[in-house]
Amino acid sequence: MPIQRPTYQRPDPSDAPNGERTRLAITLGDPNGIGPEVLLKCLHDPELTTTMAPIVIGSPHVLRVHADTLGYSDLPIHSVTEIPEDVPETGVTVLDVTEGEPSEVQFGEVTEQGGTLAMKAVDRAVDACMSGDVAAMVTAPISKDAIAQAGYDVPGHTEFISQKVGGYEPTMMMVAGTLRVGLVTAHIPISQVAEGITQKAIRTKLDVMVESLVQDFAIPEPRVAVLGLNPHAGDGGVLGSEEQEIVEPTVNAARADGLNVHGPLAADGYFATQLNQGYDAVLAMYHDQGLVPFKALAFDRGVNYTAGLPIVRTSPDHGTAYGIAGRGMALPGSMRSAIEEAVAIARHRAAKMTV
Amino acid sequence: MPIQRPTYQRPDPSDAPNGERTRLAITLGDPNGIGPEVLLKCLHDPELTTTMAPIVIGSPHVLRVHADTLGYSDLPIHSVTEIPEDVPETGVTVLDVTEGEPSEVQFGEVTEQGGTLAMKAVDRAVDACMSGDVAAMVTAPISKDAIAQAGYDVPGHTEFISQKVGGYEPTMMMVAGTLRVGLVTAHIPISQVAEGITQKAIRTKLDVMVESLVQDFAIPEPRVAVLGLNPHAGDGGVLGSEEQEIVEPTVNAARADGLNVHGPLAADGYFATQLNQGYDAVLAMYHDQGLVPFKALAFDRGVNYTAGLPIVRTSPDHGTAYGIAGRGMALPGSMRSAIEEAVAIARHRAAKMTV
Repeated sequence: MPIQRPTYQRPDPSDAPNGERTRLAITLGDPNGIGPEVLLKCLHDPELTTTMAPIVIGSPHVLRVHADTLGYSDLPIHSVTEIPEDVPETGVTVLDVTEGEPSEVQFGEVTEQGGTLAMKAVDRAVDACMSGDVAAMVTAPISKDAIAQAGYDVPGHTEFISQKVGGYEPTMMMVAGTLRVGLVTAHIPISQVAEGITQKAIRTKLDVMVESLVQDFAIPEPRVAVLGLNPHAGDGGVLGSEEQEIVEPTVNAARADGLNVHGPLAADGYFATQLNQGYDAVLAMYHDQGLVPFKALAFDRGVNYTAGLPIVRTSPDHGTAYGIAGRGMALPGSMRSAIEEAVAIARHRAAKMTV
Repeated sequence: MPIQRPTYQRPDPSDAPNGERTRLAITLGDPNGIGPEVLLKCLHDPELTTTMAPIVIGSPHVLRVHADTLGYSDLPIHSVTEIPEDVPETGVTVLDVTEGEPSEVQFGEVTEQGGTLAMKAVDRAVDACMSGDVAAMVTAPISKDAIAQAGYDVPGHTEFISQKVGGYEPTMMMVAGTLRVGLVTAHIPISQVAEGITQKAIRTKLDVMVESLVQDFAIPEPRVAVLGLNPHAGDGGVLGSEEQEIVEPTVNAARADGLNVHGPLAADGYFATQLNQGYDAVLAMYHDQGLVPFKALAFDRGVNYTAGLPIVRTSPDHGTAYGIAGRGMALPGSMRSAIEEAVAIARHRAAKMTV
C-alpha cells in the first residue's frame, strides 16, 4: 500500500566546511524523562560522531545512570567544565553544569532538581551558541511542571531562549525531511482560533518561514502552501468566510510582494495529495491542523525547529514521556533527526556567510 | 524510515456466504468527473469480479466514452434495464437509467444533465438495496453544483439517502483498514466548532460508531479513542476547558454504561503513537482534526462509510476531481477500497443475520 512519506536526507559528511566536524551543544533535558536515553542511543552510534562534534550539557552522573540502565556500561563519559577545543570521537563529552550540586535520577518523577538541572543546561547551551563555541544547539525535552517548581516562569524552551537572546520573534517550524509545517496560531483553545487569524498574523509567520527556508534550508526560492482555516478551505464561503476575507487577501498581497505562496488550500486535500507537489513548506492556521498530520506522517522523525532566531536550535518533537522513562523502549529517531537537522542548518548558515 | 500505516485487509473470497459472489450496486457518479474512470480501472481487474457481482448503475454510453478514453476499447459493456439475476464475470454490466435521454461526457464541466444522471443512479441504487436485489451500494463522486442545477436540494449523497430511507441519523465514518475515524462535528466553520461539542453530540456519535463496529465490522467489543477538542487535549485546562467540562464526563458516562472508550486524548499524540495500540476507531471532534490525518495516512485507500443506515453504502474519499478528468491519471485505490469494504460490511451483516 503506497503512502506519501516525507523523504529524509541525512547530512552528508562531505558537506562539512573544510571537512571539519560541526560542533554541537546538546542539552540533557529532564533527568527523569526519556531525553538522556534517546540522546545516548544516538551518540552510541559512531557514524554520528565522525561528522559532528557533540558536546552534551548537563550532569555526567545523570548520563552515567541512564547509560548503565541501557546496558552501555562500557561507554566512556568525558566530564569537562568548559567547552573543550577538541571533542574525542569516541565516548560522550559532557559539560558538567551541576556546580557540585546533587543530580539524582528518579524515573518518571517531576522534581525541582530535575527542572533546575535541565534549565541550567539550556542557559549554558545558548551562551555557547552566542559565543560561537558551537554552531547549533539541540534540546532534549524538559518538564513544564519541573521547571516551574525550579522557579522558571516560562512555558518552554522557545520562550526562555528568545527572552535570553532578546528582540526576536521566533516561530516554531516542524521539520521531517522536505515536510515542513509552520503554524499561525499554536497553543490556544480552539474557540479562540478564528479570532487569532489576522492578515498580520499570517504574513508575519509567512515572512519568518520564507526567510528561514532561504537561509536555513538553502532553498533559494521557496514555494509555500497556505492552508484555509475552515473545512474544505471554506468551500467558497459556505463553511466560513475567513478564507475570502483574510487568508486569500494575505496570500495575494504576499504574491504581489514576490513571494511564491499559494492558497488557501483545503488541509485534507493538501496532506492527501498535494504534499509532494513541489511545496517546500506549508503554513497551517492552528495547532492540530498542522501538527496532527505532521506527527502522523513524520512519526519517529519529527524535528521542532525554532526559526527566526540568531542561533540554531532544534529539538525532537516529543516530550519527557515519563510513562516509559528508564525502560529502554524510547525511540531515538526524532532526537537523531533533530541532531542531523541542526547540523544541516548550521552548515547552510555558515555557507551563506562565507559566500 | 518506519511509519505507521493502516493495515489493509482485502476481503477473502472464501468469506463469501455459500461461496456466492456478493451483489453490489455501484453508481457511476458525475459523468464529467473521474468517477467512471476509477470505477473502470477497478472493474477491469478480473480479480474483483470473481468474488463479487458488481452492477454499475448509470449510462452505458458514458461508461463507453470513459472506457475508450482509457484504451479499454475491448471491454464488453452489458447494458440492462433491470437488475439482472446473473451478472457475467467478464465485462461490465450497466443498469441503464437514462430512459432514452441523452447522456454526454464533457470532461471537467458542471452540467445539469450530469447532475440528473448521477442522482437517478443513486436513487435506483438505494431501491436495489432496500429491495434486497443487491447487498450493498458504492457511490462514485457527484458534483454538488451539478446536482443543484438538476434541482436536487441536498448537499450530498448522505443526506439524499437518509431522506429516502427515512428515520435514521447516519454518521460518516472514514475507513482505511483498521484506521476508522468518526467526527462529532463536520461541515461547519471552525468558529462554530466549540459550541457544537456537547455531551449529547459526542454520545450520539459514539453510540452509532460502536454499534457499527459491532454490526458492520464484526468487532464484538470495540475499543474507541475519543480525542480532545483543544491542542494537547486542553493540557489540564490551560488550553481550554471543554475537555474537563464536556468530553471527559461523556467518556466517563459511556464507560459506566459499559462502552470500552478512552479519552480525551491529544490528537497529535494519538495519530503519532497511539494509533496502533489496540483502538478499533477514533472519534475526532471536528473535520480537519480527524480527516486531515486520516487522508494523510490513508492516501489512496480511504473509504467513506455511512454508518447508522439500514443499507450499506460506501464511497471513495475523493471528489469528482474535474481538473484531471479524462486524462487517465486518477488513482483507483480509494474506489477499490470502497468496493471491497462494502462487500466486507455486507458479509458481516449477513453473517450476523444468519447466526
